[in-house]
Amino acid sequence: MSQRLIVTNVRRGTDAEPTSLTVADGLIAGYGEAPKGNDRVFDGSGCFVIPGLVEAHTHLDKSLLGMKWYVNEVGPRLIDRIDNERRQRRLLDLKPAEQAARQIEAVVAFGTTHLRSHVDIDTEVGIKGVEDVMEARERYRRYLEIDIVAFPQSGMLVRPGTVELMEQALTMGADVVGGLDPCMIERDPKGHLDTVFALAEKFGRPIDIHLHEAGEMGAFSTELILERTRALGMQGQVSISHAFCLGVQGVDYVPHLIDALAEERVHIVTTAPSSTSAPPVKRLVEAGIVVAGGSDGVRDVWGPYGNGDMLERAMFVGLRNNFRRDDDVALALDVCTYGGAKVRGQTGYGLETGCKADLVLIEGETLADAIVSRRRRRLVLKAGQIVGRDGEFVPH
Amino acid sequence: MSQRLIVTNVRRGTDAEPTSLTVADGLIAGYGEAPKGNDRVFDGSGCFVIPGLVEAHTHLDKSLLGMKWYVNEVGPRLIDRIDNERRQRRLLDLKPAEQAARQIEAVVAFGTTHLRSHVDIDTEVGIKGVEDVMEARERYRRYLEIDIVAFPQSGMLVRPGTVELMEQALTMGADVVGGLDPCMIERDPKGHLDTVFALAEKFGRPIDIHLHEAGEMGAFSTELILERTRALGMQGQVSISHAFCLGVQGVDYVPHLIDALAEERVHIVTTAPSSTSAPPVKRLVEAGIVVAGGSDGVRDVWGPYGNGDMLERAMFVGLRNNFRRDDDVALALDVCTYGGAKVRGQTGYGLETGCKADLVLIEGETLADAIVSRRRRRLVLKAGQIVGRDGEFVPH
Repeated sequence: MSQRLIVTNVRRGTDAEPTSLTVADGLIAGYGEAPKGNDRVFDGSGCFVIPGLVEAHTHLDKSLLGMKWYVNEVGPRLIDRIDNERRQRRLLDLKPAEQAARQIEAVVAFGTTHLRSHVDIDTEVGIKGVEDVMEARERYRRYLEIDIVAFPQSGMLVRPGTVELMEQALTMGADVVGGLDPCMIERDPKGHLDTVFALAEKFGRPIDIHLHEAGEMGAFSTELILERTRALGMQGQVSISHAFCLGVQGVDYVPHLIDALAEERVHIVTTAPSSTSAPPVKRLVEAGIVVAGGSDGVRDVWGPYGNGDMLERAMFVGLRNNFRRDDDVALALDVCTYGGAKVRGQTGYGLETGCKADLVLIEGETLADAIVSRRRRRLVLKAGQIVGRDGEFVPH
Repeated sequence: MSQRLIVTNVRRGTDAEPTSLTVADGLIAGYGEAPKGNDRVFDGSGCFVIPGLVEAHTHLDKSLLGMKWYVNEVGPRLIDRIDNERRQRRLLDLKPAEQAARQIEAVVAFGTTHLRSHVDIDTEVGIKGVEDVMEARERYRRYLEIDIVAFPQSGMLVRPGTVELMEQALTMGADVVGGLDPCMIERDPKGHLDTVFALAEKFGRPIDIHLHEAGEMGAFSTELILERTRALGMQGQVSISHAFCLGVQGVDYVPHLIDALAEERVHIVTTAPSSTSAPPVKRLVEAGIVVAGGSDGVRDVWGPYGNGDMLERAMFVGLRNNFRRDDDVALALDVCTYGGAKVRGQTGYGLETGCKADLVLIEGETLADAIVSRRRRRLVLKAGQIVGRDGEFVPH
């Protein structure tokens, strides 16, 4: 048995008494123990202990963190941004492995212990991005668990050869089949989704589809996703990212879609965007739908925003959903922890004895204070090892 | 002549060459001078120099900063929050002078040099809040210029005696006549606005009206405000805060209102909220309307969010308005600097030689980087004196 770590004076919730937390062999061994002779001791200073933050939607292959500032002069449409990105990837000589490493070190310091990254696959970059992110994943496996979504950012059927690249990526070890705007980008919703679900079936992988489509178009694509989830028995294996169409108010289709998403156990991943309609988190959660949070791109050619901090993202979820009550703010944090863990199908996640010691100490008078104040993380543990301290990445 | 301050190695914009800035007698004396014998020198380290941040909408009398955490369990309606606030003010024994002082020190450290505060007036608190904030204003006059809006948070006509209190506050030195939701809260739009404009005329003061009313109701109230602005020749003297109704998409009234707001030179103040419709900043600015930014309440009984940082608010303006291009992000900062200065009717504001030395040094590779990264402010000058350094308030 390796040396135990006792984190003293931590709280599991606003109303909980301070206690100590024992970590042994990478797991939570229990609470309330006093340190003994050989134990390593860390003073929790009254911080809250929460399970590791889960980033459920980002793009490790294309952050510009640490690179020369990219001056954004892009046009207003989605397709402008997609086309601009392929162009800039060449012009900027973007190195996905290096950029992934930069984002990983940054987010580990913020307390992210699990992360899902979509990685571009297209006929220009091929599967190089996937290879690079897999390389970074291997390099940082002691710090962060990463699953990779094979993501056809520029469409699949509109660019012949892309499906074969998706197959290569999945063969190589990409964990999830990605998809994108079956109507708006692919222009062939049936063709796109049949292909996505066929890949999922062939490789036995879950699905995560970017759905930016607004209003009725997005609702239609959601119906097509639901039909295929039902037909193939993929309940609990399908996620829709963004799902802006669920945020439209005063339309008939939203309640029906929410019922059907709950029925087919399709998960929703949101960035809580402020400039567009967004899934109503509390309503979805109350319907029994798993909702996770994501940063989306962190400072990339799409936009300059984002730092990957999922505690700040929880605040954005709260702001976007007009969460003012403390219990609602706590729900926003659940989205960025337990929600993401469920979307990723994690096991052994949480604060119970026996769970993996993937933990963060956050500072605040109450849990809500900790979320809205977003202070530096006191301590980040991954598999029981210290990987972040006082806001800094700690290599080991 | 007092000792000069030379701030070396500062940039006035992303493409500008680093230069030095000379401050003398509280003013910007020029650029490009080398320090001489008696000059005080501060190393600007390549930071951007911007004019002081302007907080155009907050509530100094009711922040809970520094108090025991308030657990929010409020109901969902606006009136629930207004009623809850009057109740909590008693229960929490809120001391407006003290709370104003806390918020002032915090925001000076963030680089705010000018601030407009709405201060509650009602038949319970009377004008005590105004007296208290005036006391804090006097105490901190070397650090921050504050104008006070006499704000009938609980309505005027629905609570007899409130108009007389408004008159007392204005007599005592409140700078601006406030108003609130003429339909939704006051239930008498004509009565409310006639009273607000009559007070403005009687005391010769500008107007700033909270308008949360959505859709057509808000559009109607806006029309009534415009009619009175025109009739009384108050062009350039009227601001509407929030103006959610301008953010509704696909309705006929918005373009008409925008034209009329530009015509009557009515200003718009926005917090860039993410959970409701919000004024479209770029469209308003392009129409010639002055748009300013505000934090609204900073951690109060309405909600736990907010820290008063107007650089973070500029980021929120950018996020809310889907500003991705660097020039758009710069516009978001303009809203939180020049826009606020115009709403407050400030003179001598800006970076030109001869302007008041109310300045902030912000760190970043580019101006957009400085805005989205929100690093600690290197230096804050008020009337040429150092009042903030490395994120801390500096008393003098």
